[in-house]
Amino acid sequence: MVSEMRTPRGMRDFAPEEKLVRNELIGKLVQVFEHYGFVPIDTPLLERWEVLSAKYSGGDEILKETFSLTDQGGRELGLRYDLTVPLARFVAGNPMMKMPFKRYQLGSVYRDGPIKLGRYREFWQCDVDIVGSYSMLADAECILLANRVFASLGLDVEIHVNNRKLLNSLLIKAGVKDERAADFLLSVDKLKKIGLDGVREELISKDYNVKAIETVLHLLTKQLSAKELLTEMENILGKDNEGIVELNELFSHISSENVIFSPSLARGLSYYTGTVFEVFIKDGSFTSSLSAGGRYDNMVGNFAGSGKEIPAVGISFGLEPIIEVLRLKSMLVPKKTTTKLMLIPMKGFETDATHLAEELRASVNVEVDLMGRSVGKSSEYAKSLGIPFSIVIGENEVNKQLYDVKNMETGEKTTVKKQDLASFFSS
Amino acid sequence: MVSEMRTPRGMRDFAPEEKLVRNELIGKLVQVFEHYGFVPIDTPLLERWEVLSAKYSGGDEILKETFSLTDQGGRELGLRYDLTVPLARFVAGNPMMKMPFKRYQLGSVYRDGPIKLGRYREFWQCDVDIVGSYSMLADAECILLANRVFASLGLDVEIHVNNRKLLNSLLIKAGVKDERAADFLLSVDKLKKIGLDGVREELISKDYNVKAIETVLHLLTKQLSAKELLTEMENILGKDNEGIVELNELFSHISSENVIFSPSLARGLSYYTGTVFEVFIKDGSFTSSLSAGGRYDNMVGNFAGSGKEIPAVGISFGLEPIIEVLRLKSMLVPKKTTTKLMLIPMKGFETDATHLAEELRASVNVEVDLMGRSVGKSSEYAKSLGIPFSIVIGENEVNKQLYDVKNMETGEKTTVKKQDLASFFSS
Repeated sequence: MVSEMRTPRGMRDFAPEEKLVRNELIGKLVQVFEHYGFVPIDTPLLERWEVLSAKYSGGDEILKETFSLTDQGGRELGLRYDLTVPLARFVAGNPMMKMPFKRYQLGSVYRDGPIKLGRYREFWQCDVDIVGSYSMLADAECILLANRVFASLGLDVEIHVNNRKLLNSLLIKAGVKDERAADFLLSVDKLKKIGLDGVREELISKDYNVKAIETVLHLLTKQLSAKELLTEMENILGKDNEGIVELNELFSHISSENVIFSPSLARGLSYYTGTVFEVFIKDGSFTSSLSAGGRYDNMVGNFAGSGKEIPAVGISFGLEPIIEVLRLKSMLVPKKTTTKLMLIPMKGFETDATHLAEELRASVNVEVDLMGRSVGKSSEYAKSLGIPFSIVIGENEVNKQLYDVKNMETGEKTTVKKQDLASFFSS
Repeated sequence: MVSEMRTPRGMRDFAPEEKLVRNELIGKLVQVFEHYGFVPIDTPLLERWEVLSAKYSGGDEILKETFSLTDQGGRELGLRYDLTVPLARFVAGNPMMKMPFKRYQLGSVYRDGPIKLGRYREFWQCDVDIVGSYSMLADAECILLANRVFASLGLDVEIHVNNRKLLNSLLIKAGVKDERAADFLLSVDKLKKIGLDGVREELISKDYNVKAIETVLHLLTKQLSAKELLTEMENILGKDNEGIVELNELFSHISSENVIFSPSLARGLSYYTGTVFEVFIKDGSFTSSLSAGGRYDNMVGNFAGSGKEIPAVGISFGLEPIIEVLRLKSMLVPKKTTTKLMLIPMKGFETDATHLAEELRASVNVEVDLMGRSVGKSSEYAKSLGIPFSIVIGENEVNKQLYDVKNMETGEKTTVKKQDLASFFSS
């Protein structure tokens, strides 16, 4: 192959055996999303640069990794880096929308960042968001939905839950100024990745007060049960603290043991304002999160430009990490095709094979040999793709309208009348 | 809304009622594609510029309309303008692939061109292609597949078929030089759009011999039946002409009356080498083509760089024109949601409603009011979305485990036991 004839760096093709797995997974996600009353939307892959760089959008860090381009009219555009900013723009552009607006969106997003193992420049997100409700019922719904998604995939997960308001209160209590709280939390969010020492170092380099750093980190990393931790926070901040109130209400709607309070969870994005959550594999066999989200009550209203706050909460599922986990746990059943039957015409019976295929294709997935190959070669091809049945079409078959259906795995043959063929394959 | 907070020029959002229609249509296409034994692949939205501009790719005209950008590593990229070039690259990169490779791909493609009514800069293509077979059985399969796609959509179509080899022979016979034939055909392809006089003018301006122009145009626009036209071509070029032989073989595999010979069909893309086809609404109520394709035996091998020809034939369905036709013919059933049931909790019964929803969501699409609204307001919301049923959740319902299911259209109420609710909605 000519060497430049590859995919762009950090981007991949998906061969049929991978795409079929992705389609199946997407089908399962969509089914759960719709069981929760979410409806689909679609938005362009490209957004105006003004949208991607708006206040309360993804922030400077993400903009540095955003693919930018200019159209023929000289207008600056960028490839979307998430599905949340497009949602905010969409809602802002539809002021007559009925609330709550519960939408799901699936699609690729782009980050022109460093490429590491398992990190790509094009990857899929599957997002559900509820716009218009301040109720903790909405936050609970996102968490319950995530819980069901992973149950439906057969994955045991833990859903870590925290609240930005609680974190902010802790920081203020420790002496961190309000406007510097968000940046503090960006470092805290890296606890899992770079460890306690790494976070301490980063915060010191960001010039935060050392005592404040120690106070907060000590609290957030106490080896206590989730319940004990929440009580400890209540003791420090008081039962009336907004973050505590919201967390208690949220937990009252949820009875699953998979959902636990995790006080050090901050989430990397600056736009979160309340509940934040992140989903991990329970047995720790995979450390990246599979899904994450939270409440962001400022962003959408900002896009609407009306000065009115429009509350929102949502969760995003990463197709890539979920597939990676399923593969690690050998829970993916690979298949190369959905074709059930291969018709192999003898020389001169190609048209007959095509006509028979046409009849069956109302309900059965059928391939006809297109290469003029021998029965042996065609059978090899069918076997290599895992097509389970084949029929050779020749004079006998056409005259008698009786077909020997060969099971490609066992070699066993069953004679089936023409009119019974379709039902033979649909059973 | 802030005025810059819109979609990029020529690109659109799809609201739920539009996206649901698109999803349903895509589902139907995919089902037919798999009945014909095609398997899905996916490729990046971005391609290297070298790929998009390679010889035998889309050609200079398309490159002028291609969005280009540069990644952080300084590498030139472009947004794909079709799904055929990515397929050629994919096949070239997988030399061990079993042939024929029958793949389908669905996704958006991009053209930074002028915006007219019904023309967008982002639009969806749904492609099926067969790589590796020279047999006219493959061409027939694409045409039969298209025929079934439109039958499954309830649309009466005509599939126009021609062969580039036949056109080239006619041009050579009329004195047009081989290397100038492709450009001649680009003009001929505009017959429907700009009429006979327009095509004549364009060819004259391209400096073709006037007599050659007249000879060819006279032939291609004769008012004869498809059968008579093919006979006429046979008389001029001889029965052994490769284009004639291929067309006769192709038609021998197809018995549908929707498929007709159309000698003036050329197709705008320069990479076609043999059969070309294009699908139109039979009653002429919509003039744009809904689907088109053809054989391109040079492109894939060129990408492989091995000097070996790799034959291919395929067809592309345009999601946008198909939806436009279905809308024109009032054949789309609009719906705003797939939600079946709205649960409306009385104050204090929100958690009970959530728990009931959780139970039903194993099989039923359920929304719970998240706005703390009155029964009246919540019912209005449910009606505006077309949610067919609602249940009010209060003390009575929770204690007795008996629920009044309200039909939102008729107002009729049915009392259903808790354990019978799921089956009530799945029937």
